[in-house]
Amino acid sequence: MVIILKPQYEERQLNHLLKWLEGYKLKTALVKGEQSTILGLIGDTSKVDIETVKAIDIVESVKRIQEPFKAANRKFHPDDTVIDVSGQKIGGKNFTMMAGPCSVESREQICEIAASVKSAGAGVLRGGAFKPRTSPYAFQGLRAEGIELMLEAKKATGLPIVSEIMNINDLKLFDDVDIIQVGARNMQNFEMLKELGCTNKPILLKRGLASTMEELLMSAEYILSGGNKNVMLCERGIRTFETYTRNTLDLSAIPLLKEHSHLPVLVDPSHATGISRLVKPMSMAAAAAGADGLIIEVHNDPAAALCDGAQSLTPEAFSDLARSVNALLPGLGKKTII
Amino acid sequence: MVIILKPQYEERQLNHLLKWLEGYKLKTALVKGEQSTILGLIGDTSKVDIETVKAIDIVESVKRIQEPFKAANRKFHPDDTVIDVSGQKIGGKNFTMMAGPCSVESREQICEIAASVKSAGAGVLRGGAFKPRTSPYAFQGLRAEGIELMLEAKKATGLPIVSEIMNINDLKLFDDVDIIQVGARNMQNFEMLKELGCTNKPILLKRGLASTMEELLMSAEYILSGGNKNVMLCERGIRTFETYTRNTLDLSAIPLLKEHSHLPVLVDPSHATGISRLVKPMSMAAAAAGADGLIIEVHNDPAAALCDGAQSLTPEAFSDLARSVNALLPGLGKKTII
Amino acid sequence: MVIILKPQYEERQLNHLLKWLEGYKLKTALVKGEQSTILGLIGDTSKVDIETVKAIDIVESVKRIQEPFKAANRKFHPDDTVIDVSGQKIGGKNFTMMAGPCSVESREQICEIAASVKSAGAGVLRGGAFKPRTSPYAFQGLRAEGIELMLEAKKATGLPIVSEIMNINDLKLFDDVDIIQVGARNMQNFEMLKELGCTNKPILLKRGLASTMEELLMSAEYILSGGNKNVMLCERGIRTFETYTRNTLDLSAIPLLKEHSHLPVLVDPSHATGISRLVKPMSMAAAAAGADGLIIEVHNDPAAALCDGAQSLTPEAFSDLARSVNALLPGLGKKTII
Amino acid sequence: MVIILKPQYEERQLNHLLKWLEGYKLKTALVKGEQSTILGLIGDTSKVDIETVKAIDIVESVKRIQEPFKAANRKFHPDDTVIDVSGQKIGGKNFTMMAGPCSVESREQICEIAASVKSAGAGVLRGGAFKPRTSPYAFQGLRAEGIELMLEAKKATGLPIVSEIMNINDLKLFDDVDIIQVGARNMQNFEMLKELGCTNKPILLKRGLASTMEELLMSAEYILSGGNKNVMLCERGIRTFETYTRNTLDLSAIPLLKEHSHLPVLVDPSHATGISRLVKPMSMAAAAAGADGLIIEVHNDPAAALCDGAQSLTPEAFSDLARSVNALLPGLGKKTII
Repeated sequence: MVIILKPQYEERQLNHLLKWLEGYKLKTALVKGEQSTILGLIGDTSKVDIETVKAIDIVESVKRIQEPFKAANRKFHPDDTVIDVSGQKIGGKNFTMMAGPCSVESREQICEIAASVKSAGAGVLRGGAFKPRTSPYAFQGLRAEGIELMLEAKKATGLPIVSEIMNINDLKLFDDVDIIQVGARNMQNFEMLKELGCTNKPILLKRGLASTMEELLMSAEYILSGGNKNVMLCERGIRTFETYTRNTLDLSAIPLLKEHSHLPVLVDPSHATGISRLVKPMSMAAAAAGADGLIIEVHNDPAAALCDGAQSLTPEAFSDLARSVNALLPGLGKKTII
Repeated sequence: MVIILKPQYEERQLNHLLKWLEGYKLKTALVKGEQSTILGLIGDTSKVDIETVKAIDIVESVKRIQEPFKAANRKFHPDDTVIDVSGQKIGGKNFTMMAGPCSVESREQICEIAASVKSAGAGVLRGGAFKPRTSPYAFQGLRAEGIELMLEAKKATGLPIVSEIMNINDLKLFDDVDIIQVGARNMQNFEMLKELGCTNKPILLKRGLASTMEELLMSAEYILSGGNKNVMLCERGIRTFETYTRNTLDLSAIPLLKEHSHLPVLVDPSHATGISRLVKPMSMAAAAAGADGLIIEVHNDPAAALCDGAQSLTPEAFSDLARSVNALLPGLGKKTII
Repeated sequence: MVIILKPQYEERQLNHLLKWLEGYKLKTALVKGEQSTILGLIGDTSKVDIETVKAIDIVESVKRIQEPFKAANRKFHPDDTVIDVSGQKIGGKNFTMMAGPCSVESREQICEIAASVKSAGAGVLRGGAFKPRTSPYAFQGLRAEGIELMLEAKKATGLPIVSEIMNINDLKLFDDVDIIQVGARNMQNFEMLKELGCTNKPILLKRGLASTMEELLMSAEYILSGGNKNVMLCERGIRTFETYTRNTLDLSAIPLLKEHSHLPVLVDPSHATGISRLVKPMSMAAAAAGADGLIIEVHNDPAAALCDGAQSLTPEAFSDLARSVNALLPGLGKKTII
Repeated sequence: MVIILKPQYEERQLNHLLKWLEGYKLKTALVKGEQSTILGLIGDTSKVDIETVKAIDIVESVKRIQEPFKAANRKFHPDDTVIDVSGQKIGGKNFTMMAGPCSVESREQICEIAASVKSAGAGVLRGGAFKPRTSPYAFQGLRAEGIELMLEAKKATGLPIVSEIMNINDLKLFDDVDIIQVGARNMQNFEMLKELGCTNKPILLKRGLASTMEELLMSAEYILSGGNKNVMLCERGIRTFETYTRNTLDLSAIPLLKEHSHLPVLVDPSHATGISRLVKPMSMAAAAAGADGLIIEVHNDPAAALCDGAQSLTPEAFSDLARSVNALLPGLGKKTII
């Protein structure tokens, strides 16, 4: 930690500060100049609250040197974390395709999609039972029944399943769900993260719409520090001024998160852009940038009768996408999925 | 709702769409052109899912005309909502000053600040018991004990109190808390909003860091539509690229939220900027822009022994701020607070 | 300047770095730790290129301590700059109202508005001759003719005038223009800034849509360092994700720019929000936050015949706004304008 | 164009509006409802100023249906534009690697890098002579001399060259420069765009830091509508709240710009992220997303003596990057470059 002192300060004030810091058993070094004075702190500064230091009268600014996350930090865990999800390995040299409908609608729908995406190369079935909706008047998902239908599709196909939790009190409903998704809007629902940290369920943690990569890693730290080591990160677009896309997919997060952390990094191109035509090029870009997997919305098109082809990805389009991504994998040092 | 059709479509597809829309009992009108065709829908379109319409093959884009919030909408509720909080009126011609420490630390601290801010003109005591912290290693608040201490300060001063809830399972702890705060990070914790909608507690709903005003109003709608009419909104800064401030305080939200909605609008200048020197000018600006109140961090300076004056607002500075804001109120059509 | 070194480095590399720094005659101090090493540089580091230092192999990060602007810096120029514009003082205890149409359209229009805003308290007439338009097909302003018409209105009313320059080759057209405006899109047109620095014309420099306050001050520095001391800054909204407003007016820029710099700070609430109903509340908020003036769009409503009252501010609405702002000024330590 | 009228309006007002619209020879259709009324306009609405319509008293909102750009629009120009730069084809099935130093420093430097990047597969040499720098105290480039050195490197290697223009008065210096770059900060320097539209030089137009894709296309339209058809677009990162990277590279711009426009789309991963370690993964991602080329900073490491390996891309690293990108091209339907 580096503390920059204001140009004018009294020795008395500095001594107060130094005395207070003594409690933290840090090595300190003072560099005085005419315009400013630098106080360097070396050692384990993780307990020193940066906001308290900033609030000290003679302090102009503070710069943390060490990253504030530990359990998620690659420095202390150089090897890639590989998570075993019911036999399906996620991370390392593996590339995992998660696919399925935005919302579970019926047994027929979910089982049909499950079979279809499995044959196209998907390793995990996704499906929404609890749906976070901006409007209270919008369909909120089939909820408990949706989880039941997901479990039937799991039984039918053998695919592990991932679904989003929105209320920690629903945790028991997720007993047989293989991966629990924490959505972007709950990335900083710290009370829920703490409770998930006490389970050993694999967690798919999505980046918040306005969250920095560091905040994403700190939210992962909440889960990891609780004892649950099975966390995978998911980039799904951040909020910017651009209006052609719903969000701006930040693919630079892939190499950066993997540099700072050992956790697997997946990408959700469907929610990021909100445009089905972009799912394939963004999936290929994500793979090329080093992602450990993708989570893709696939729809078996019940709307067809009505509208001759909805814009979401059909099973055929998903199959084409999977083949194209698969062709990239060997060149990227990843195992193929088909 | 206005639906723009793609240049080329088949009559068959259009007929499918019109047939589907019949179910909603809407008046439709078709305007055909060479480059594009417009389909206008008039009537109650609140049940028509805009995402489903967008997904239809022949649809280029969709524009909602009616605002998606109703209970929060000033159109259907022209008069200002005035909320009675234990005798303290919030909204309308009232201006409410909420003040207190970021975190409750001890009985002595909270009672001392409470007495001090009350005498300076504050009508509500704020204090954090449950603290949302980015890091799992940071102090998470005194939690249940913090609420107890707030209640003691309430008893001692008669000031109603406001404190943040982070887990709906803690609701019973808030039985005697006068206003429940929903923090920025939980603004879209829809499951919590639903449960708060089933109470009749006044709710202070803070705008999320990356939430639009419309999303804030939709989150209010979750509470209101559950039956709880006592919602006040709070602007507290949004996330932008600027680095001199922690967030960018969006004061244009005050007149806009008040135009679109009848709910009281408060402003938190302390969290918005993260700089105590800015609290006074931003408080005055918020009042001048028409805010119904302020929520201000005040610290009774236990750090003084250590550092000769922390940067947070002292009770004296708060008192000065309150006097300056008070002087503006008559010119703004608001009742004075001192 | 503080340089954080990477955990592992060779003495040889460090010696190279120290030798290179010798050339800058800085005092250096090294603080070694297990996880990281801090190198503090004290002295005039303004010549040390931070990007070059960052590019050095053993450097993890670099933090500048001193602000990179000097001529604009209040540290070296504690008193407010007051600019004399043809007898009209801007800055210090003065509050300046600049008002006029977005585009100059005709002699009649500009002269009529000029007379009207003058009688309402405006001290400077604004008017656009060269218009920056996103579309090449949109009206680009009356250009040279527009400047001529502004000069006639100046002669008729005695009001100094401000107008935007878009091409430095037009500079001679601005000989009798009192204040040259540099628009948001040209805030980092460095070549133009340099040439304006060689004049002694008062410059109204608008903040770019995505520019930090520091970048605004650095652009002012371009002009000031060229010898032209007559620069005033203008906050006019920054680009964010919010869609209810065209831009987000950042009023915290007022106290911060005035803290960091001695230059006058004005606010343009018309362009910031794009909504005429917000101009009055945002003007009052800007004044309350300490602005040195406002620049307001006023329209003498030729559209009235067509549309019974356009949404831009009429002269009457401007007059009401001016009176309301004027009433705030004494309490803010500013001289009244009416 | 769709105009939404306010709930209450008088027939007289509507008639005024309809009469005004008559001048534009548009087909209109009115759909009346209880809550709102929709007025659809079909035909060539490009001359109708949307801001004027919005300003009309009875208008609630306006939605443009047609895209505001024509010359850049793929609808009217379905085939990819392929630009011939001194024999080097850009766009279509071609993939173009532009590479070279951020700043031209010396004859030796630029010629050495030119030879090296050519042998690695680069088709165009980039190099900065005029440098846009935030600070007036920073090195502003070798300027005219830098262009001279670039031309020598061109003669020595046969590579066409691209360099940035910052002042239209320097245009004659670019007579033998093959591609003129318009930097992000000048993307909306409309006066410069107009003059470049009167040349027939290939232009590399970079997206502004806070510019939407539509604004980028409108700036291209300025050049195209002037008669210069040789425009290529360049995504180089947009400004967001994220701090790990300098800007956020928006790769979804590649498929979207190519969908809306026929112009070639290149990507600059060096400036976007500001981190040399990210240049390779982001280059591969850009290629996978369908980019027509890359512009990469390569440094021949004169800093080596000092600092044992600067962080910018060395010629060796560039060569590795080029080989990796090249391996992707056949699968993407692009011609290989090596």
